[in-house]
Amino acid sequence: MHEAEVEITIPFHDVDMMEVAWHGHYAKYFELARCAVLDSIDYNYLQMKESGYAWPVIDLRIRYPQPTVFGQTVIARAKISEWENRLKIDYEIRDKTSGKRLTRGHTVHVAVDIETREMRMESPAILFEKLGVTP
Amino acid sequence: MHEAEVEITIPFHDVDMMEVAWHGHYAKYFELARCAVLDSIDYNYLQMKESGYAWPVIDLRIRYPQPTVFGQTVIARAKISEWENRLKIDYEIRDKTSGKRLTRGHTVHVAVDIETREMRMESPAILFEKLGVTP
Amino acid sequence: MHEAEVEITIPFHDVDMMEVAWHGHYAKYFELARCAVLDSIDYNYLQMKESGYAWPVIDLRIRYPQPTVFGQTVIARAKISEWENRLKIDYEIRDKTSGKRLTRGHTVHVAVDIETREMRMESPAILFEKLGVTP
Amino acid sequence: MHEAEVEITIPFHDVDMMEVAWHGHYAKYFELARCAVLDSIDYNYLQMKESGYAWPVIDLRIRYPQPTVFGQTVIARAKISEWENRLKIDYEIRDKTSGKRLTRGHTVHVAVDIETREMRMESPAILFEKLGVTP
Repeated sequence: MHEAEVEITIPFHDVDMMEVAWHGHYAKYFELARCAVLDSIDYNYLQMKESGYAWPVIDLRIRYPQPTVFGQTVIARAKISEWENRLKIDYEIRDKTSGKRLTRGHTVHVAVDIETREMRMESPAILFEKLGVTP
Repeated sequence: MHEAEVEITIPFHDVDMMEVAWHGHYAKYFELARCAVLDSIDYNYLQMKESGYAWPVIDLRIRYPQPTVFGQTVIARAKISEWENRLKIDYEIRDKTSGKRLTRGHTVHVAVDIETREMRMESPAILFEKLGVTP
Repeated sequence: MHEAEVEITIPFHDVDMMEVAWHGHYAKYFELARCAVLDSIDYNYLQMKESGYAWPVIDLRIRYPQPTVFGQTVIARAKISEWENRLKIDYEIRDKTSGKRLTRGHTVHVAVDIETREMRMESPAILFEKLGVTP
Repeated sequence: MHEAEVEITIPFHDVDMMEVAWHGHYAKYFELARCAVLDSIDYNYLQMKESGYAWPVIDLRIRYPQPTVFGQTVIARAKISEWENRLKIDYEIRDKTSGKRLTRGHTVHVAVDIETREMRMESPAILFEKLGVTP
């Protein structure tokens, strides 16, 4: 299983007038966990670029069963759940102390050839290689 | 129909190394359109708070068929599509010049009683009143 | 005089737990005004890049005599005050309705040759040309 | 000496088209270091609020001798340098590996009585107490 976790303490500048982290900032928390799992397979954003592909987000989903507050420490986990035609990553954020699940969601990415700007209908060989699977 | 549009010019500070607006910033563009439609029914965030209810986002979905670039002018539209038990708002972002659709998505909000912190299973009367509909 | 103004309505996502715009967001408001004045002399960020120079911020100063709140409409003004060796831009943010001054500050930028990555000790000819002044 | 350090890895979402961290984000890095030093004297933002005072930033200065890039790990240090009439905090950001100084700056804060909204001309007793100094 390809997954990784990062620890995040909710900073003051992410918290809104309702005294909870503003919902849009979770895209950053997801990205921190995503970068960790991509680092773990040796295929981070810089390596993606070097491989000739960009992997833009084409779909983002976030569900917020529970809010988070200033100073709360959470664990954000990212898990690669699909890779054959597109790269799908699932996320879960839970409270570090209680383990209670606070947020979940996913992102979907597709390979875009940086030179031609064309979207790939199947994931390129480099992704399978990095994941250690056969296409 | 309850809907509203805002015009947004993609600022430099929203654009990432791939030279497109970073995907997480669209939650801000959606919010600007959402605030416009809520203003149009006379039930903006401050009026929500005065009415005793917070309406946190419990679900956010964004699909990105096309990227946007620095200096591009787009139109973000928000439309209220559900209100009986929860408030659902649909969004569409299109290029101002070409009219081409760039992004679409939705947010789902539920009423939370600010005093008791309890989530409402049905939308409170005030929302129907503001929308000019009967529950 | 090279100056320009933009109108900004403080968005919800910029406002913190103290119910005022978080101080760091003013760097964005300054940038919106700066982009307007640079557009007015036909030397915006993209044109800077095409001219072979980046103009990074090397100094930022912001003073906050008064806070701003969610929904408040302000006018941000940028004025080019120095250009010979470095580009200095002064800013002022005032309340649209009352005209009261809320914020002031400046940024200092130096020309960096994009190819050699070397910092210029004097502003390049292109800046004088755009400003319509003789070096 | 009252000072504290935090380690920050520059995230992708902070990096702009010029492939460096956008200058405005450093206000966040300063805040992370500031929160650490305030925690160290047992007088963080929540404790400030409980003590009846807000301490808004009235002056922010950032100098950027060197840029930072995506994935770079830096150390941000905050040091309390004045407290008698206002709270002044000095910052320095350096590269973790080389130790090279990248950014420096300061913030100035004044105590505002939350109830009366009046600005204090002298720091309140609580600050001296937390700092372990006599007024």
